[in-house]
Amino acid sequence: MTTASNLPVTRALLSVSDKSGVLEFARFLQAQGVHILSTGGTAKLLADNGVPVTEVSEHTGFPEMMDGRVKTLHPKIHGGILGRRGTDDAVMAEHGIGRIDLIVVNLYPFEATVSKPDCTFEDAVENIDIGGPAMVRASAKNHAHVTVVVEPADYARIQSEMEANGNCISPAARFDLAIKAFEHTARYDGMIANYFGARVESGSHEQPADFPRTFNLQVKKKQDCRYGENSHQGGAFYVESNAPAGTIATARQIQGKELSYNNIADTDAALECVRQFDLPACVIVKHANPCGVAVAADILTAYDRAYSTDPESAFGGIIAFNCELDGATARAIVERQFVEVIIAPSISSDAASVVSAKKNVRLLECGKLSGHIGQMDFKRVTGGLLLQHNDAQLYDELKVVTEREPTIEEYGDLLFAWKVAKFVKSNAIVYVKDNMTIGVGAGQMSRVNSARIAAIKAEHAGLQVPGSVMASDAFFPFRDGIDNAAAAGVKAVIQPGGSMRDEETITAANEHGMAMIFTGMRHFRH
Amino acid sequence: MTTASNLPVTRALLSVSDKSGVLEFARFLQAQGVHILSTGGTAKLLADNGVPVTEVSEHTGFPEMMDGRVKTLHPKIHGGILGRRGTDDAVMAEHGIGRIDLIVVNLYPFEATVSKPDCTFEDAVENIDIGGPAMVRASAKNHAHVTVVVEPADYARIQSEMEANGNCISPAARFDLAIKAFEHTARYDGMIANYFGARVESGSHEQPADFPRTFNLQVKKKQDCRYGENSHQGGAFYVESNAPAGTIATARQIQGKELSYNNIADTDAALECVRQFDLPACVIVKHANPCGVAVAADILTAYDRAYSTDPESAFGGIIAFNCELDGATARAIVERQFVEVIIAPSISSDAASVVSAKKNVRLLECGKLSGHIGQMDFKRVTGGLLLQHNDAQLYDELKVVTEREPTIEEYGDLLFAWKVAKFVKSNAIVYVKDNMTIGVGAGQMSRVNSARIAAIKAEHAGLQVPGSVMASDAFFPFRDGIDNAAAAGVKAVIQPGGSMRDEETITAANEHGMAMIFTGMRHFRH
Repeated sequence: MTTASNLPVTRALLSVSDKSGVLEFARFLQAQGVHILSTGGTAKLLADNGVPVTEVSEHTGFPEMMDGRVKTLHPKIHGGILGRRGTDDAVMAEHGIGRIDLIVVNLYPFEATVSKPDCTFEDAVENIDIGGPAMVRASAKNHAHVTVVVEPADYARIQSEMEANGNCISPAARFDLAIKAFEHTARYDGMIANYFGARVESGSHEQPADFPRTFNLQVKKKQDCRYGENSHQGGAFYVESNAPAGTIATARQIQGKELSYNNIADTDAALECVRQFDLPACVIVKHANPCGVAVAADILTAYDRAYSTDPESAFGGIIAFNCELDGATARAIVERQFVEVIIAPSISSDAASVVSAKKNVRLLECGKLSGHIGQMDFKRVTGGLLLQHNDAQLYDELKVVTEREPTIEEYGDLLFAWKVAKFVKSNAIVYVKDNMTIGVGAGQMSRVNSARIAAIKAEHAGLQVPGSVMASDAFFPFRDGIDNAAAAGVKAVIQPGGSMRDEETITAANEHGMAMIFTGMRHFRH
Repeated sequence: MTTASNLPVTRALLSVSDKSGVLEFARFLQAQGVHILSTGGTAKLLADNGVPVTEVSEHTGFPEMMDGRVKTLHPKIHGGILGRRGTDDAVMAEHGIGRIDLIVVNLYPFEATVSKPDCTFEDAVENIDIGGPAMVRASAKNHAHVTVVVEPADYARIQSEMEANGNCISPAARFDLAIKAFEHTARYDGMIANYFGARVESGSHEQPADFPRTFNLQVKKKQDCRYGENSHQGGAFYVESNAPAGTIATARQIQGKELSYNNIADTDAALECVRQFDLPACVIVKHANPCGVAVAADILTAYDRAYSTDPESAFGGIIAFNCELDGATARAIVERQFVEVIIAPSISSDAASVVSAKKNVRLLECGKLSGHIGQMDFKRVTGGLLLQHNDAQLYDELKVVTEREPTIEEYGDLLFAWKVAKFVKSNAIVYVKDNMTIGVGAGQMSRVNSARIAAIKAEHAGLQVPGSVMASDAFFPFRDGIDNAAAAGVKAVIQPGGSMRDEETITAANEHGMAMIFTGMRHFRH
């Protein structure tokens, strides 16, 4: 067993691609009497600014070669990093290998390089760092004795530890930084595997497949949850390193209890649904489904109408807005109902002050909502993972298939209903009138039952189905869905079309004087 | 730009942790006149068996040191790998660096080491390979000229290419193997980051946190799907490298169309539900929900009864069994209904022959079902990922809270209903009689509507609710859930309990002469 040493830093190797802060940090090391080894651009930057450095090639006695491909891959470097202080001192002395106590390295910017639209395959290959990861991994393995820094953000911490402890760095910091180093290399090689794995799959360097041969993912923990979906399951929330703005991943919590696992899932569902609308909109989510959605000229009205769709389900719900939460709307919410989470792009100071009276309510500000965020979607199955493109589109083509065209009001309601149906669990049936949900039928194994549920909900909330429009996330396999809707007073329908029996369904709609639009696109969501 | 070379293999470096097949492969290389470099155990194995090798230390003129920590990290090795043939020939000649054309390396078994229950922190650290990944990554970067082999399974392929092409290996094979190399190192460092990241989080080497600081995942593509959840979304199915037996990830397809994205998700749901039962059981899934479940003395009866719960939803469903599919049951299915997928631990030859008449039906054999498979569960949110422990338990404690105890038959039905409810999307209400679902109410934003749906379904299927039992995946917040159930003729109830108003609910059950069990455990599933 190796005991962690606590020797002062006497020699450091600096070789960084991201040069921010490195000159200041090197000056600090110089002032502490640390011998600095460096290479290439980093060495030049330091020397040009009067910080004395020893080139790695001078230290090893072996020239840098092959345009920098081989410079640090030398036993005087790796022995200096990997040597176990105490155990390997004699062999190090025998071969003139001096300890290297601090490694400051970050890697060729593979990710930035391949994100450029004009990046060639050769550029990508050339930007795979070999020497850097080898030093980073060696230092991290030998963290009992060596410190590795892969991010400029950690310079300050090293500096304060060294200043406070006679140039020593604590074992705890070394361990923490070592794991960060492996996180860094894991992510780096994962990106390489994804990038080239998409090209192995397609057999073409220029036209990568959408789904690489292996899928490599790294996410970073944002919070531990008190528990998972249920209290006997542990849970935690992880985010991508480049998580987009205007999402649950980057939202800022202003007040309230810690977000629970289910809160996070439901807030995401609400935010993704409300993101679709241009007018002020409100979405209330319960158990992963929108239970009330409305748009209006102002968000107070939007909230009020979304709430009235299904007050029973709205109790304990998650409420999302697509524009600033004002004081009046905040007041209407907290005075009327128990709410778990409120999220909006911005929260007025009035609204924040109103909500502060209810300490438990989680109030989140997520920043400006952009349009649809096209990420990869995952679904866990036992022993594996289903990957798919996010459902980024709304419709293929809007095509009126009935004799009667929808009125302009119906048209608006149909599109609104379609946007809501996209976010309701399948089978989804949504009734809408005047830009507000009248009934939401979710998660049924048969479309007929989803329609029944939607009607039951409307009735339960004292809302009138007659005069409303209906959206269905998938096609009607039989005309009965249309017949039932007509009997309930539905005036217009939007659905993908594409059934073998579309003609029967169209005939049914015509017989009832309904307008019907085919979207040419289904939106299952399970 | 570097042009891929097609030079014959003249020198190879072999250094493997997994020694299977390496001796035979080395003999082949020897016979082809390839100069073999090797280290440590691999060198000894080859030399002891009469294959002439040059030790790396002899080649570099630098001793292996620090118990093998530093042996290949030398410019004569890495220059020999990384040198660009054509471009770097002069500098290589000048420094006496000979080309190394083939690198056969696999890494210290970090994963196997840390899987051992008695693995110490120091063992784990010592099993982090440094020199191996450096050579693997260098070779993979320089795949235009160099071949890297990380798996014994690839020896045969190299051998046949070299035999056919005068010791040359094709650029296509080199590229493919290079990506495999990065997949290998990405997975390796991901495992290290997970292992140590759990210890950084807990602050303890011995007691890791359940959720590491970063979560690193690699999954391997099993198939591209024709599309994702909808036809405008691409999709693919990935599996873990150690996916457990008896799951959708490892199931073998005997016949039928390619599994679709939704097929895979639904088959997983069906299999995880049917896995719970000891008696012959059948689960039919539609839209991710069980729409019919039954256990019986034989699976034909189990299927027949599962089907009768909801014949409408069973149309186009996924059918899973927990024991061998026999010919009679296979015949009953294909004669009666349109089915997407049938899966069972084994398929009798009779059954296979019966199903073969329906070419499109996907027939899968998954092997023996073990008990619950405790994996991590993921849920995608925009910009991130929710991780949780799988819902591995069934109940905390079964506690009869009413004056009346359930009869033995009710007890059986209650437990059966509870197992089904666990796999129904929340809010879930399940009616059961005689080990068969009578009505399944799924995915509703309010519990009352789930109960309504369950009753509607029973009525729709011509089944009688009176005399049945009811399971609810979460507690009843008010007594009305119990009152409504009693009015429908439900005789006994199973639910978690834990509401502020449990007393009211118990009073209601007592008033109706019902038996009620609290499980002390909720099973939300969204």
